[in-house]
Amino acid sequence: MSLAQEMFAIAPATGKANLSAAQLKLLTGKSRWIYRVGEAGFPTVPTIAITRTAWDGLQAERAKKDSRLRTHWVACLFKLVGADGKPPQLVVRTSAAAHNGGLMPAKVGIAAPSSEEDSVDPARPLARAIKNAFDSYGFSNITWTGPRSEEDRARQIVLVQATADGDLEQFLTRNATSGALGPGPLNGAPLPRLPESVNALVSLLDAKAGRHMECLVAVKRGNVQFLSARPIQATAAAELEAAVDRVSRKVWTAQNAVSRVDPARMAQLLHPRLRSNDGVKPIATGLGVSPGAASGVVVFTPEDAARIHARGKHCILVVTETGPADIEGMKAATGILTARGGMSSHAGVIARITGKPCVAGVRTLSVDVADMSCRIGDREFRAGDRLTIDGTDGSVYVGTLPLAQPHIGGAIGTLLGWSDASRTIAVRANAETVESAKTALSFGAQGIGLARSEHMFFSPERMVALRRMILSEDEDDRMRAVNGLVDFQTGDYSALFSTMKGLPVNVRLFDPPLHEFLPRTDEDIDDTAASLGLAVRALRLRLDRIAEVNPMLGHRGVRLAITYPEILQMQMQAAMAGARAAAETQSEPVIVEIMVPFVSTATEVRFVRDKVNAIVAHSGLARSERIKISFGTMIELPRACLRAGDIAQMVDFFSFGTNDLTQTTFGISRDDAPTFLAAYQRKGIYENDPFVTIDEKGVGELIGEAIKRGRAKNPTLKIGICGEHAGDPASLKFFAGLGVDYVSCSPYRVPVARLTLAQSAA
Amino acid sequence: MSLAQEMFAIAPATGKANLSAAQLKLLTGKSRWIYRVGEAGFPTVPTIAITRTAWDGLQAERAKKDSRLRTHWVACLFKLVGADGKPPQLVVRTSAAAHNGGLMPAKVGIAAPSSEEDSVDPARPLARAIKNAFDSYGFSNITWTGPRSEEDRARQIVLVQATADGDLEQFLTRNATSGALGPGPLNGAPLPRLPESVNALVSLLDAKAGRHMECLVAVKRGNVQFLSARPIQATAAAELEAAVDRVSRKVWTAQNAVSRVDPARMAQLLHPRLRSNDGVKPIATGLGVSPGAASGVVVFTPEDAARIHARGKHCILVVTETGPADIEGMKAATGILTARGGMSSHAGVIARITGKPCVAGVRTLSVDVADMSCRIGDREFRAGDRLTIDGTDGSVYVGTLPLAQPHIGGAIGTLLGWSDASRTIAVRANAETVESAKTALSFGAQGIGLARSEHMFFSPERMVALRRMILSEDEDDRMRAVNGLVDFQTGDYSALFSTMKGLPVNVRLFDPPLHEFLPRTDEDIDDTAASLGLAVRALRLRLDRIAEVNPMLGHRGVRLAITYPEILQMQMQAAMAGARAAAETQSEPVIVEIMVPFVSTATEVRFVRDKVNAIVAHSGLARSERIKISFGTMIELPRACLRAGDIAQMVDFFSFGTNDLTQTTFGISRDDAPTFLAAYQRKGIYENDPFVTIDEKGVGELIGEAIKRGRAKNPTLKIGICGEHAGDPASLKFFAGLGVDYVSCSPYRVPVARLTLAQSAA
Repeated sequence: MSLAQEMFAIAPATGKANLSAAQLKLLTGKSRWIYRVGEAGFPTVPTIAITRTAWDGLQAERAKKDSRLRTHWVACLFKLVGADGKPPQLVVRTSAAAHNGGLMPAKVGIAAPSSEEDSVDPARPLARAIKNAFDSYGFSNITWTGPRSEEDRARQIVLVQATADGDLEQFLTRNATSGALGPGPLNGAPLPRLPESVNALVSLLDAKAGRHMECLVAVKRGNVQFLSARPIQATAAAELEAAVDRVSRKVWTAQNAVSRVDPARMAQLLHPRLRSNDGVKPIATGLGVSPGAASGVVVFTPEDAARIHARGKHCILVVTETGPADIEGMKAATGILTARGGMSSHAGVIARITGKPCVAGVRTLSVDVADMSCRIGDREFRAGDRLTIDGTDGSVYVGTLPLAQPHIGGAIGTLLGWSDASRTIAVRANAETVESAKTALSFGAQGIGLARSEHMFFSPERMVALRRMILSEDEDDRMRAVNGLVDFQTGDYSALFSTMKGLPVNVRLFDPPLHEFLPRTDEDIDDTAASLGLAVRALRLRLDRIAEVNPMLGHRGVRLAITYPEILQMQMQAAMAGARAAAETQSEPVIVEIMVPFVSTATEVRFVRDKVNAIVAHSGLARSERIKISFGTMIELPRACLRAGDIAQMVDFFSFGTNDLTQTTFGISRDDAPTFLAAYQRKGIYENDPFVTIDEKGVGELIGEAIKRGRAKNPTLKIGICGEHAGDPASLKFFAGLGVDYVSCSPYRVPVARLTLAQSAA
Repeated sequence: MSLAQEMFAIAPATGKANLSAAQLKLLTGKSRWIYRVGEAGFPTVPTIAITRTAWDGLQAERAKKDSRLRTHWVACLFKLVGADGKPPQLVVRTSAAAHNGGLMPAKVGIAAPSSEEDSVDPARPLARAIKNAFDSYGFSNITWTGPRSEEDRARQIVLVQATADGDLEQFLTRNATSGALGPGPLNGAPLPRLPESVNALVSLLDAKAGRHMECLVAVKRGNVQFLSARPIQATAAAELEAAVDRVSRKVWTAQNAVSRVDPARMAQLLHPRLRSNDGVKPIATGLGVSPGAASGVVVFTPEDAARIHARGKHCILVVTETGPADIEGMKAATGILTARGGMSSHAGVIARITGKPCVAGVRTLSVDVADMSCRIGDREFRAGDRLTIDGTDGSVYVGTLPLAQPHIGGAIGTLLGWSDASRTIAVRANAETVESAKTALSFGAQGIGLARSEHMFFSPERMVALRRMILSEDEDDRMRAVNGLVDFQTGDYSALFSTMKGLPVNVRLFDPPLHEFLPRTDEDIDDTAASLGLAVRALRLRLDRIAEVNPMLGHRGVRLAITYPEILQMQMQAAMAGARAAAETQSEPVIVEIMVPFVSTATEVRFVRDKVNAIVAHSGLARSERIKISFGTMIELPRACLRAGDIAQMVDFFSFGTNDLTQTTFGISRDDAPTFLAAYQRKGIYENDPFVTIDEKGVGELIGEAIKRGRAKNPTLKIGICGEHAGDPASLKFFAGLGVDYVSCSPYRVPVARLTLAQSAA
């Protein structure tokens, strides 16, 4: 492209712009909208554009006393002259690709150059304004998306516009909060009176841009002339409503809407959240382990939480860490704040199950329960003071910030309905209670992909039963404890199967990491001893004996099923009894998947499979048409990935537990990671937190290899993902590329997964 | 082979046996030695053999009143008749491949059959004895090496011998304890008087069998006639001496000797061990975490251990688990017995470093320090009672059992010298003290492959310095603590480099898992607070804050170097100063390898490499001819194996840490594994303990893949193995197949590695 072609009218005073393909490519920022509105025939202020290269060319030519380019430039400026032949006053605007604080504001009231030399002389108003505009783009070579190339810089453009005649007015193409088609008011400003004809502009821009736009027009005697526009960030809800509205107006196809909504933004709609944290600084930051925001008074004990809750008020439970004794208190609290622990800490697990916002691992927090006070950094808080926490990003604020409640309106449902049409990978939820199963169904889950049996015991009387089993000293002792659990479990399973009528329910065999289920405080130990009928000293001895150095890598998962087969027996009996009970009350089949966790060898899988098959055969359900039972394994250890070929021959399905697989592949305990993870991200060691977005190059290679080896040996093998990555859009795109059959995430992430997987399929 | 050929003379009364190749193959057990001695021309009692198939054939023929085979059989029996033509009295012997309790003892004094029918009639003495002999082989189809095939069973043989004339005498071909060429006495019996001519038999059998044999001969008027022989298990020391002696007698080549000594048996020579545990039952079994046996009085506190030690007596320190406060006590104790912990527990690590036998994780042991007593199962022990522990197999015995001290005599040195001739893979030792470096050198180590810097702090005054660093709250605080460590480290490194004159020393950067270095008991916390000048409450707060849920996967290794660069800085400065000091006192170059542990990404490696290079450059040693510095990384996490291609481009060497790699690949904490590992081996889930013998199919695949990817990107990459598997013969054979450059094991395993790798190279 010659330099002369890099100065051109995008909205000539008369006629059409007739841009070349190369010139069209130069249109970034405002220039794009001015050109498009003008081309569509809507009255638009005459506007020309010039690139930095062309401008530099004009200046170089000027130094050499040449005038070939200048002639082009002046001809170009003449395109701003209307039918009356009078050169207008001029306006110089930047037209950056992204909005940026340092850009020069529009320079108005520039007299038209009085001579050709005048038009390029930086001492004169027009050329000075153009120079300032280019300078304001800055010289930084770094942008958010990587180093800015020299080429990009050369192609930056500045606009010269004729001055519009009339009153300048600003408005939005759509309401920033509701998403309704505008004109809508700017944030804080009343909507100006605008002529009817502006509606055509609003529709035109909304269709061309496909997002909320801020518009500048001149109004004179009922006529509207378009000056400029730039996109604005609306709320996630408004964007979603707008997307659905564009489909109803036939501006977009349903497919367009599905592909253009950002799943991560949609996720923000599914929890209470801070309405705004503008200007408010967090006093501390921890790990956001359970999303959503919560405000309330500070309490330090479960009892106080229950008291406040009973009075219908909100409280934040502030503790060093939580344990089984705190569960009722956590349910009563509106949010939870802890000094210790991470994503898979007791606090994190319970908070996500109960849907409570939780910030964990705030290192600057220290709690003094005896004194009923805590310190966060250098500030002290006493019971009754107010805090707001944001479990989405881990922030902690002083006082009560305004919250927005989750808005799961018609638009989200409509969009997800469309998304299902193109999606081929099923979306299930991780859930073990009837309540969370119902939430999952309301969000469109197609089954339960992970029912963590041990989580069914998070209530005081059941916890006693579970502890009795864990602490049993011999087989008889254990057998009695186990029998005490059968009834609970049978009822739980029956209710869960009935809730999920006809949809698959994946029951993971017991996997209780000991430290999450045993008493720790003196008081809790005293209580447990009393409820188990043990001397405190005897209980302490047993606790000492089974304490583990690294419980994450300890006596759990399949290892329990093999060393204590009576636990497996109990659980399978309960699952079979639950299935039978559910089948009696519904016409749909009961679809049960039995899943064994934490395996590292095919021999372990065969051992459990044989026991499971025997129990199923003995129950008489194996031949039932109304109850369908399959058997599979979690793949959550590196060795299981490597031996996937052997393991696949013994199972109907794999379900990848990406949390534990990430922990073991990296050698990182998620609970202990906060001490170095922040420094790692700050120093650029990790691009992403591998517990949030799947590590494609390491963990991802293992998953891909396991799928390949597994399917090679068992072509009908079903593949699922049930770690928390199954709710992360970037990770979901990666899993879709691996050809998985389903994913399973927390109920609140089901819509995110539905949308993301629809986008990946397109 | 026809049935007739399956009955044949192996030592005919006259002439040679002239066996076919098929008949030679049938010679198992005693028959082999009888045949070989006879063939060599030594007077041997006439002997014939018959297979089970042939015997069954004879019986089947008898039922059909046929006599074709019987004619052969009788002809065969006639081979027992000597020159005098008189049928001798007969003896029937089994000839099993392996000695076995249920076998029929030799049946003597059988009259020669008086008719042909007599020779096959089970109601008559000869046939009855033969039938009984076959029956005594049993019908079990399972042997130690797998199911016994039908074919093997059909080929079992029974021997019929003429009765020898003279006194029957028994002796060994070599002394069972010293290995000296015999005749030697049988265990417990005096050596019989034997004629000179027996020496020829002894030499002959020793050469043919290549192992200790028990011999049966008949002596009459100074003449010796050979009857039978079978191999016996001598002590490891005797086997080794015998092997070297055979080479000096030119029976074997040096290469033969190297290939025929079992490295695992040789390992038993390198620690004190139980002289015999015949008939003594252990009262408990734990995990043998540091090899060797120890006897002594029971003590429960480090103070008591020190007291007993000061009196020149032996004691066994019996504790629930050990911590840093116990180190002096452990050094004073002769052996250590713990109720908790496993191979990588504090007790295990310190015991192996200090060379103390240790049995850990004895689940039936409970210690009551207040009462100065402990219970093991249902027995109670008080301070002063005597115990013997065997850290090789984890057994615990009541009382004082006799021990044998390590015998590292000339034979082992000679054999290892020969082994070095064919070995191509270098053997180094894991050592950090001058003392263990000297031990390693005395065992032939070619360098130090792993010096664990943090282990240099296992002494009270240094532990205070290290704790000060770990517990520091901010950078200033930490900087002061770190500076207090520099002098210690400089001296340590200088001494280590000097000791290893000219051989490479691999310095692993700090990798202290927090739980091993921090105080735990109330008393220890009080002491630590006092020595750090902190209030106890403040110390407890700090301890609480840095406590980790899974320390194995926590803030350690490279993560410390990145988050606390001042620690890296201190350590590198100390290493450089130490190298400079060592170089000034010796003519050999100082060869230092700096190794960063626990990496999972190439970015981590680059970060540390850049810091290390900067420090080396600043020290001025980078251009020194007298000091050679290289940089590498441990590969001990699955992700490091997968990303080996990236990582290899930043380092000079990889050293595989197979302990942690096994823990993370399997998802098993070695400390916590004892609760299920025993059950796993009992139920056949694991063939081997993966912490003892490398898991070739899982961990091994990762190592192989990492070597492949690493060398593809860096062809000069040096590869080492520094986990404990590097001292295990089966694992060493696997590593040799992967083409590693060196292995590094504990000093006491260096001879095992030298021998095993020589065998692998052959």
